[in-house]
Amino acid sequence: MNNLTIRQAVAEDTALILHFIRELAIYEKAEHEVLATEETIRQSIFSDNSHVNALICLQGEQPLGMAIYFYNYSTWLAKSGLYLEDLYVSPEHRGKGAGKLLLKKMAQIALQNNCGRFEWSCLDWNQPSRDFYQSIGAQSQDEWVGYRMSGQTLIDFAKED
Amino acid sequence: MNNLTIRQAVAEDTALILHFIRELAIYEKAEHEVLATEETIRQSIFSDNSHVNALICLQGEQPLGMAIYFYNYSTWLAKSGLYLEDLYVSPEHRGKGAGKLLLKKMAQIALQNNCGRFEWSCLDWNQPSRDFYQSIGAQSQDEWVGYRMSGQTLIDFAKED
Repeated sequence: MNNLTIRQAVAEDTALILHFIRELAIYEKAEHEVLATEETIRQSIFSDNSHVNALICLQGEQPLGMAIYFYNYSTWLAKSGLYLEDLYVSPEHRGKGAGKLLLKKMAQIALQNNCGRFEWSCLDWNQPSRDFYQSIGAQSQDEWVGYRMSGQTLIDFAKED
Repeated sequence: MNNLTIRQAVAEDTALILHFIRELAIYEKAEHEVLATEETIRQSIFSDNSHVNALICLQGEQPLGMAIYFYNYSTWLAKSGLYLEDLYVSPEHRGKGAGKLLLKKMAQIALQNNCGRFEWSCLDWNQPSRDFYQSIGAQSQDEWVGYRMSGQTLIDFAKED
């Protein structure tokens, strides 16, 4: 696969990861929602008690993309799963197989950690990615709708009656 | 709220939790997908290195329902979030406020742990729950589609080329 390699991210990758997060958010039309800074990325991913992991895909010394993941849980399986929060490959490096290699590496990590599932989410209008995910055998979970509470709504709801 | 209380689940709640998981799966028309046993529930939720948490809601000594949750992550916020995997109240105890109290307790736990979001998923045909989630201010994430790889597909995909 074009001499691509994958390694675990380290604290020195913080600026690179933030760059990838911003590029991905621009593609997802949500750049204004990126509140992450180098400091908060470093604290949340690279602190000793972090439950978040990141992989970097390189061609030689050149970083092409990244994956950020954590472990979720299935009550039906009574097992952890691997949840891919962000998968990103820079536009100028697409078509080299970096995305598929990152997914394959995460599938391997999932199995090594006795996970029952490997899961992620995709924007419904991102047809190229959806076609790709279908081509590798992933099943879309169309029956499920996500819900989110945040900001002042969360603060107000949490208050005792 | 009808003298309801909430406490953290302990290993002695394993059989109760499995009972709730099975009841919820029957409602979700997926009983055949429940592979969990008391042994695997105990290992996965109550082992020292577990990343999964459970709450039990009681009226006096009577358990009414439960919540199972873990921490996810947002790259945009560079913060953990609280993810509610399962919320269940036994049919005979609905209408007492147990579900709302469990959600409120989790909102409090989310804020105590500096989480940026409180999130969960709901089956799209479960209109009573969707109406309830909307009534408390949660936002449905309709743009996102979940993907899952598991079983033999995951094993095959993980293999090196």
